[in-house]
Amino acid sequence: MGLTHFDEEGKVVMVDVTNKEDTVREAAATGKIQVSPEVYEAIRSGAVGKGDVLGVASTAGIMGAKRTSELIPLCHILPLTNCRVRFEMVPEEYTIYCYCTVKTTGKTGVEMEALTGVSVALLTIYDMCKALDKSMEIGEIYLCRKTGGKSGEIQNEN
Amino acid sequence: MGLTHFDEEGKVVMVDVTNKEDTVREAAATGKIQVSPEVYEAIRSGAVGKGDVLGVASTAGIMGAKRTSELIPLCHILPLTNCRVRFEMVPEEYTIYCYCTVKTTGKTGVEMEALTGVSVALLTIYDMCKALDKSMEIGEIYLCRKTGGKSGEIQNEN
Amino acid sequence: MGLTHFDEEGKVVMVDVTNKEDTVREAAATGKIQVSPEVYEAIRSGAVGKGDVLGVASTAGIMGAKRTSELIPLCHILPLTNCRVRFEMVPEEYTIYCYCTVKTTGKTGVEMEALTGVSVALLTIYDMCKALDKSMEIGEIYLCRKTGGKSGEIQNEN
Amino acid sequence: MGLTHFDEEGKVVMVDVTNKEDTVREAAATGKIQVSPEVYEAIRSGAVGKGDVLGVASTAGIMGAKRTSELIPLCHILPLTNCRVRFEMVPEEYTIYCYCTVKTTGKTGVEMEALTGVSVALLTIYDMCKALDKSMEIGEIYLCRKTGGKSGEIQNEN
Amino acid sequence: MGLTHFDEEGKVVMVDVTNKEDTVREAAATGKIQVSPEVYEAIRSGAVGKGDVLGVASTAGIMGAKRTSELIPLCHILPLTNCRVRFEMVPEEYTIYCYCTVKTTGKTGVEMEALTGVSVALLTIYDMCKALDKSMEIGEIYLCRKTGGKSGEIQNEN
Amino acid sequence: MGLTHFDEEGKVVMVDVTNKEDTVREAAATGKIQVSPEVYEAIRSGAVGKGDVLGVASTAGIMGAKRTSELIPLCHILPLTNCRVRFEMVPEEYTIYCYCTVKTTGKTGVEMEALTGVSVALLTIYDMCKALDKSMEIGEIYLCRKTGGKSGEIQNEN
Repeated sequence: MGLTHFDEEGKVVMVDVTNKEDTVREAAATGKIQVSPEVYEAIRSGAVGKGDVLGVASTAGIMGAKRTSELIPLCHILPLTNCRVRFEMVPEEYTIYCYCTVKTTGKTGVEMEALTGVSVALLTIYDMCKALDKSMEIGEIYLCRKTGGKSGEIQNEN
Repeated sequence: MGLTHFDEEGKVVMVDVTNKEDTVREAAATGKIQVSPEVYEAIRSGAVGKGDVLGVASTAGIMGAKRTSELIPLCHILPLTNCRVRFEMVPEEYTIYCYCTVKTTGKTGVEMEALTGVSVALLTIYDMCKALDKSMEIGEIYLCRKTGGKSGEIQNEN
Repeated sequence: MGLTHFDEEGKVVMVDVTNKEDTVREAAATGKIQVSPEVYEAIRSGAVGKGDVLGVASTAGIMGAKRTSELIPLCHILPLTNCRVRFEMVPEEYTIYCYCTVKTTGKTGVEMEALTGVSVALLTIYDMCKALDKSMEIGEIYLCRKTGGKSGEIQNEN
Repeated sequence: MGLTHFDEEGKVVMVDVTNKEDTVREAAATGKIQVSPEVYEAIRSGAVGKGDVLGVASTAGIMGAKRTSELIPLCHILPLTNCRVRFEMVPEEYTIYCYCTVKTTGKTGVEMEALTGVSVALLTIYDMCKALDKSMEIGEIYLCRKTGGKSGEIQNEN
Repeated sequence: MGLTHFDEEGKVVMVDVTNKEDTVREAAATGKIQVSPEVYEAIRSGAVGKGDVLGVASTAGIMGAKRTSELIPLCHILPLTNCRVRFEMVPEEYTIYCYCTVKTTGKTGVEMEALTGVSVALLTIYDMCKALDKSMEIGEIYLCRKTGGKSGEIQNEN
Repeated sequence: MGLTHFDEEGKVVMVDVTNKEDTVREAAATGKIQVSPEVYEAIRSGAVGKGDVLGVASTAGIMGAKRTSELIPLCHILPLTNCRVRFEMVPEEYTIYCYCTVKTTGKTGVEMEALTGVSVALLTIYDMCKALDKSMEIGEIYLCRKTGGKSGEIQNEN
C-alpha cells in the first residue's frame, strides 16, 4: 500500500472522499512543552490569578484547529462540531501537557484538526514566555485516540 | 521579571515595539517526526522520484511561517524577507528532521515564524502519511539560533 | 443556567453540537451609523451615481459574514446558504441603517454571522468616509429575528 | 471635498499613500455592550474566577485588529506595533465598555484597526453569552483619539 | 433572465440555495501559460529532477481552490471532497496547460473552485519564473465540464 | 541563469531580499473576459444602473491583490500603498478588459499583486454571470508595466 495523497503518476492530490458516508468522528491528540522553572512558575501563578497564559493558548488552539484546512495543503474542509483544548501542569518535570479533542459529522477524520490544535496552543505558550526562556522545547505530539470512519477506533498508548 | 504579554492588571496585550529600531533579524528552528519503517521508505522513495511528500511539506512550511501572526494571538505582523524549510532523513532512527530559517528587517524577532514553519511542515508530513501509520510522533521542536535585536545572538545546542 | 462556552472547570470550549439535527436556520441583524450632513450627502449622491459607498459596504458585509468563524473564537464553521446586506438612509437623522439576513442548513444558528455582516458593513462605511468626518458613531447593533433550532423563533422589537 | 476612496470616474480605489512619510501613529476606539442582569453577573463572576469571557474577548479583539485589512476592502496592510483591548464594567447600567488602543509606524492611521478590535471583542462577548440573552445590544462605537499623520491629533468627547 | 446575484432593487446578494438538494457535483477547468523557451526548459528539467515548479504550483492550486469562497465575494462555502491539479507540457508551443478537477456533495456547483484552482496554479508558475521572463502570458481559462445540479451536464469544447 | 526559487539542491525557497533596498515600486497588469452578447448587455446595463457587476469585481480585485502572499507560496508579504482596478468594455468583441495597478515601497516588486488583482476581478465577473453563460473565457493576463527595483522599467506591448 502506498501513500494516498499521490495519483498513479506521483502527482499530489486531495484524496477523493465524495462517496464516503457522513459519520460521527472524534479525535484526541496530545503534546507538551518543557519550560524553565521560572517560566513554569509564571504560568502556574497566572492560571490562578493574573496573566492567564493557558487561557490565551486554549483560545488560540481552538481557533487554529478550525483553520487546519488552510494550513495543511491536502486536508479537507470540515465543519467541526466540537473542540476543546485543556492543559495539565506537571511540576516535577516543569512541563505543561496539552490535550485537544475534536468532533465532526463528516466524510473524513479530524486527526489533523486535533494535532493542529495542540501545536498552535503550544506555540502560543512558547510565544508568551519566550522573553523569559529561549530554550523551551515542544514535543511528544501524537494522536491519542480516534473513532469513527472506516479505520474504526485507534488508540495510542503513551 | 514577569511575562511581557500582560499589563499591570494581568490583562493580555501585544507587546509595544513602536520605539524599537528596525534591524536585520534571523532565526532558525528545528523539529522532527518519528515514523514507521514503511512510512520512512515511502517518503524516501518519493524524495527521489514520484510522490514528493517533503516537497509539499516545504511549501506548506513556508506558507505557514508567513501566516504566523494570524495563528499566534500576540505575534506581530512581520514582512519576512527570507524563508526556507529543509529536511534531513536519518534512516537508522526512521526519523525526518526539519529545519526552518527565517529572516526579516523589523522591530521584533522571527523565532515564532521559524517554529511555526517547522510545526506546519511536520504536520503536513503527518497528514500525507497517516493512512499508513497512526502512531507517528512529532517532537524536539526548539529554537536553534537567533540573531539581531536587543537579546543579540542566542544558540541552543541539541 | 451558566455560560455554555465553559466546561465544569471554567475552561473555554466550543459548544458540542455533534448530536444536534441539521435544520434550516435564519437570522436577521441590524445596526446603524450616524454621520455628518456632509458625509450623508456624499453617500446619498454616490448611491445614485458615482462613488457607491453602500455597494462596497454590502460586498464587505457579505464577505465578513462568511468569515465569522475565523473572527469569533468559539463560533462553529457554517456553510451559509444565503446572505444579503441592505441599507436604509434616514435623512432627518443623518443615519444609515444596515440590515443583514443570513440562512443555513446546519446544527447551529447564524446570529453571529448576521451580526458580523452588519458590523463589517458599517465599519466599511466608516472607513470610506473617515477623511470627511472623524466623529461618526456606529450603534444599535442587535439581533432582529431568528428562526430554526431548539430556541425556535425569537423576535426583538426596536 | 469629496470621498477619497473613489477616482475621478467614481470608481473605488485604495488611496495612494506611496509618498506619505512613515510616522508613529496611534488610535483609540471605544464601544459597549448592554446585557441582561443575568449575563452581567455571569461575566462579572467569570472575570474574577472561572469562565473568563472578557479574557477570550480581549484575545479575539487583538487578533481581529491584526486582520482589519482583510475585512475592510480599502484598508492598507499595516504592521501593528502595539495593540491592547481592555474592558470596564458598569454595574448600574449592566453594560461592559470596551477600549482598544493600536499603534504603528507607517503611512496611514490605525483608526480602523482600533474600531475593528472593539467590534470583534464585543461580538465575541455577544457570542459567548447569547444562550442566556438574545436581546443584547452593541453600540456607541467611535474613535476616541488619534495622533500622528497629516490630520494631527483628533479627540472625540463622549 | 437577468443576473442572479442582484435583488429586485439591483443590490448584490448571495444566491439563496437553502432549499436546493445536496447532490454530487463535479467541475473541471483549464488554462495555460505561454513562456519563453528558456523558462520552458527550466520547468521541464525541474519536473524530472531538481526545482519542481509544477509540484509547487499543484499544491498552490489545490490550496487556492479550497479558499475560493474567501476570494470571490458571492461564492458559497463548500466542503470540497476532492481536488486535483495536473499539467501538460506542449514543447512546440512553449506552453504549459493546467487542468483542475473539483468535487463536492452540496447545494451549489464547484465551477468557481476549479477555475480558481487553475488561476492560482498558473500565477504560481508565473511567480517562480518571473526572474527569467517578464513577458509570459496566462490565458484560455474556461470551464471544460460540469456535472450535477439543476443545469445538469455542461461540456465546453476547446 | 536558473530559477531563483530553488536552492543549490533544487529545494524550494523564498528568495532572500533581506539586503535589498526599499524603493518605490509599481506594476500594472491586464487581462480580459470574453462573454456572450446577453452577458455583455447585462454587465453594461448594470454599470450604468442597477446590478453593478464591475463594482463588485473591483472590490474583489483589490482585496485579492492584498492577499497575494497567502495564495502564491513564495511571494513576500508587502504592505501595498496603492491599488486600483478598472475595466474597459469593448462592445464589438463582447469583451471586458481589466487593468490593475499596484504600488509599494519595499524590497520586492508588485507584479504578482497586480496579476492576482486582475485574476480575482475576472473570476468575480465570471461567478456573477455564470448562470447566464457557462462558456465564458478568461485570457490575455500579462504584466503591462513595472518600475522600480534592480530590473528597472519593463514594458510589454500587447
